[in-house]
Amino acid sequence: MITERIAGLRELMASRGIDAYIVPSSDPHQSEYVPACWKRRQWISGFTGSAGTVVVTRQEAGLWTDGRYHVQAAQELDPGVYSLFRVGLSEVQDFPDWLARVLGAGDAVGVDPKVISVEEARRLTEKLEGKGIALRFVEENLVDLLWEDRPSMPADPVFAQPEALAGESVASKLSRVQEEMVKEGADAHVVPTLDGVAWLFNLRGTDVPFNPVFVGYGMVTRRAAVLFVDPAKVGDPVRGALGGMVSFQPYERLGEYLDEGVKGGWRFWIDPRVTSQWVLERLAGRRRPMERPSPVIALKAVKNDVERRGMRACHVRDGAAMVRFLRWLEETVPLGGVTECSAAARLDALRAEAPEFRGVSFETIAGYQGHGAVIHYRPDPATDCEIRPEGLLLVDSGGQYLDGTTDVTRTVALGPATQEQRERFTRVLKGHIGLARLRFPKGTTGRQLDAMARQHLWEVGLDYRHGTGHGVGCFLNVHEGPQSISARDTGVALEPGMFVSNEPGYYHEGAYGIRIESVVMVTEEEALKTQYGPFYAFETVTMVPIDRRLVDEAMLSAGERDWLNAYHAKVRERLFPELGAADRMWLLGATEPL
Amino acid sequence: MITERIAGLRELMASRGIDAYIVPSSDPHQSEYVPACWKRRQWISGFTGSAGTVVVTRQEAGLWTDGRYHVQAAQELDPGVYSLFRVGLSEVQDFPDWLARVLGAGDAVGVDPKVISVEEARRLTEKLEGKGIALRFVEENLVDLLWEDRPSMPADPVFAQPEALAGESVASKLSRVQEEMVKEGADAHVVPTLDGVAWLFNLRGTDVPFNPVFVGYGMVTRRAAVLFVDPAKVGDPVRGALGGMVSFQPYERLGEYLDEGVKGGWRFWIDPRVTSQWVLERLAGRRRPMERPSPVIALKAVKNDVERRGMRACHVRDGAAMVRFLRWLEETVPLGGVTECSAAARLDALRAEAPEFRGVSFETIAGYQGHGAVIHYRPDPATDCEIRPEGLLLVDSGGQYLDGTTDVTRTVALGPATQEQRERFTRVLKGHIGLARLRFPKGTTGRQLDAMARQHLWEVGLDYRHGTGHGVGCFLNVHEGPQSISARDTGVALEPGMFVSNEPGYYHEGAYGIRIESVVMVTEEEALKTQYGPFYAFETVTMVPIDRRLVDEAMLSAGERDWLNAYHAKVRERLFPELGAADRMWLLGATEPL
Repeated sequence: MITERIAGLRELMASRGIDAYIVPSSDPHQSEYVPACWKRRQWISGFTGSAGTVVVTRQEAGLWTDGRYHVQAAQELDPGVYSLFRVGLSEVQDFPDWLARVLGAGDAVGVDPKVISVEEARRLTEKLEGKGIALRFVEENLVDLLWEDRPSMPADPVFAQPEALAGESVASKLSRVQEEMVKEGADAHVVPTLDGVAWLFNLRGTDVPFNPVFVGYGMVTRRAAVLFVDPAKVGDPVRGALGGMVSFQPYERLGEYLDEGVKGGWRFWIDPRVTSQWVLERLAGRRRPMERPSPVIALKAVKNDVERRGMRACHVRDGAAMVRFLRWLEETVPLGGVTECSAAARLDALRAEAPEFRGVSFETIAGYQGHGAVIHYRPDPATDCEIRPEGLLLVDSGGQYLDGTTDVTRTVALGPATQEQRERFTRVLKGHIGLARLRFPKGTTGRQLDAMARQHLWEVGLDYRHGTGHGVGCFLNVHEGPQSISARDTGVALEPGMFVSNEPGYYHEGAYGIRIESVVMVTEEEALKTQYGPFYAFETVTMVPIDRRLVDEAMLSAGERDWLNAYHAKVRERLFPELGAADRMWLLGATEPL
Repeated sequence: MITERIAGLRELMASRGIDAYIVPSSDPHQSEYVPACWKRRQWISGFTGSAGTVVVTRQEAGLWTDGRYHVQAAQELDPGVYSLFRVGLSEVQDFPDWLARVLGAGDAVGVDPKVISVEEARRLTEKLEGKGIALRFVEENLVDLLWEDRPSMPADPVFAQPEALAGESVASKLSRVQEEMVKEGADAHVVPTLDGVAWLFNLRGTDVPFNPVFVGYGMVTRRAAVLFVDPAKVGDPVRGALGGMVSFQPYERLGEYLDEGVKGGWRFWIDPRVTSQWVLERLAGRRRPMERPSPVIALKAVKNDVERRGMRACHVRDGAAMVRFLRWLEETVPLGGVTECSAAARLDALRAEAPEFRGVSFETIAGYQGHGAVIHYRPDPATDCEIRPEGLLLVDSGGQYLDGTTDVTRTVALGPATQEQRERFTRVLKGHIGLARLRFPKGTTGRQLDAMARQHLWEVGLDYRHGTGHGVGCFLNVHEGPQSISARDTGVALEPGMFVSNEPGYYHEGAYGIRIESVVMVTEEEALKTQYGPFYAFETVTMVPIDRRLVDEAMLSAGERDWLNAYHAKVRERLFPELGAADRMWLLGATEPL
């Protein structure tokens, strides 16, 4: 089947004079999770992961994906058709370099300009140009031409996020964006990201899994705002709430509006990281659009007081569900019959008991033994296995609640742990604590802090092949920017009110995986204000015990041990009101001081 | 006098329709230290520091400089003429933002395109463009038109660096550069930096203070290389050594060669960070030049085995001079009459005893008490003071030797230290050791490691306003790229054979300064090679004791104490053969284990 699809694609490529065609995993909004109608990379390759790029040439087909998906991609791809390129391994070329190598002068590479960002297109052009290879933007998506039963665009209704939960009116958000526009001399700003649109207009939706967003574009001008969205999705209450401030236009009309702005001599502000090449091409008029990071992304990242309260509250609720799950796991695994899939389902059901719950924030991961070492392993009936009272289980999960979003990973010992497991777990924990208790001055960026969480693994030649932390939205995407804690972070300073995950790990391929992940909030340390300016710290908002049985106490410094004991005391205090007697008893044991 | 110069400049600006004129501190080669003929910023402002930018508008004149020079600039500038902008303080706008604010639409900013890099010009244009302000490249330098007794270009002879010390032939260096050019599809590469030219052609000079370089441009083509240099500077031995491979052309002819390449349809490779806007304008032809980091800078940074041996050897020699100095200081200060200037002169004289010595690598800093808190304080007859047997002295100095370059800072207690001084010194030391003993995987960049050296100061709301480390050349510039250890590092991975400084500090304004600086070399930890690839570490090559009397032993972890004792044991072992009996005795005491 995949073979036929590739053959069909090659015919289309030939008829258009294209020597290679790129199928990225993203959509016109540069989304991580995309609605079914835009899962073109999955359709052409069979690989179901959320990140990866397909390139098809006349002779070859390749998939490039990062460390999270190396194992999964190897399982899903047909090796007779696809070569797998494991990005992150030192000997592996990324696809632009590969294209520059396998193609020759005069060849042409095609891509749909809607699914490649301005920044990616520019990087690719630079790489190919030196070799005399052209990058051609083909407006018809070649995969769509082949995909006969392609799902239609999602038609789910859009709903309002009340100001009591959003903490800020749409009018206020618009005026803050317009203020930035005035400061930078821009007449209009295009908001292409789905979570940006949802945040700006205090709206939510159910168009994609896990992210409570809907398909739409936003555009803010000096005095007004336009929401481009399928009119069938927007009911009267939403129209009423936004009435005066926002005009509604069909999704397809963005292009015409851009054309009109160009005719009017407007100076557009686009964010080249998240805006499609298609928008840029459309804006190629008299005035070059201004390229800067979007103010929507920056403003959204700093949560207001209402959102901070909501995030804290939902993490307590989420922690209670996790405690119920961990106790259930401990009691039920020895009885037999618990599998990765059934455990994940049980955890999802426990989260769903909360009235504020609106779904999981990503597919729940329960990775037993060797499966725990597959960084983004998802329980699957095809690979499901029984969880026995021995070895390690890694559980990474989170919820969407009306007042916030959670993301937590705990690794639990189901039987006596080996000395190696305890030693590795403790190194991961030391990194987690090192970050959790760090103080740092205003202006510090996540890429400056990433090594703090790795140094104890580096000491013995170990590491983990993923970032240490990602931004977390508030009843929005569980992965959001602009901040992160990663060597590849773009260098945005951490600000009070930003939420990030703190998730170092260690993976012993084929044997077990360890990850300790909590969500932390950047706070100001009022007492530390000196001539060096304000100092910040992290408040851990996740409230779930860390498995004490996996800690090698002798490896902890006094300060590290004190942190863990204080954290566990806080978990007790916050979760007790949420739990019944049996769960309280379990929690008492799980949070006993070291 | 400065007032008249500014008035003259404003007349020239008016006659050319310019509303603001920028005078950067750099020269056509983007040098840190420039020959006297190019010290235009100093001439127009009176500020003598190595970094700073002057902007003169019709009404105002401002100097922007970083934390190293805040105090010095305040002393040197006439506050009736110049406003001082202390870059790095949170409320201070950098000059492009300031220009965008004080000028209006239709105004024009002028700058000599030879003294602004492509990257700086681009950033400035972007900032001004949004406000409708034009950036105009004025080929005549307006300062030169006013500066009547401007010194002539340096005419010092160029001399060869023998292959026995350079470790690689010019032919081999050229072919490695040409290999990179072929890989990237470039026909010609312009080498604008003076240390790049010196490295590439195995030549040295004495045209600028501290850096053993000479004024010239290099150009490498697929089959040949051209050195643009005043013919009077090049004697027969140098011509003979480079004869077949390199053609010599007068310095002024670079422009014509660029024109010819453009006519020939060549694809030029320039590094936008260090190439002047003038070169780019000259290349504006059919093919846009390719903009990438220069291969010369990357290749120069990784020292070959001969250079590594030379660096180690000159650091032992340099350490012996430092030990002689420290003993002399301890014995002589109590006798009275030692001042900052006389101490610095003494140290320079001790270094000069080595036959391989070719000058200091920067002006020796001896900062007593409050002067130590002025980050780049230079002893000056006007501020000179007696060093008494009390308080702290910070000494930052280095030498140029035929086989390498050194840079070392030690802070010494001349009497009993206060508890605060010991506490701060120990925090700085913990950061220094944290970096010195770190292991990290291949691919790690300096900006990931900077926080390691700061965390113990951050813990109590303290910091230092400079980077943690800079690259160090081999008988070349004491500051070289591309690597550094700094939050602002450009993200170049640290590679075995690179040298960087490790220099955390703490500065108590008006009271004392602390800095502990050693040069370290990146080495591969063969024993640590795992599935996570090669791991690297730092070998400290500076061999000078760290003042034990300033260490609060209780604040050190066992690992930190062991590191210090092992370092001191190595200093003893390496320096003993270089020292006489009295200095050996002194060193024994100074390196006694804690």
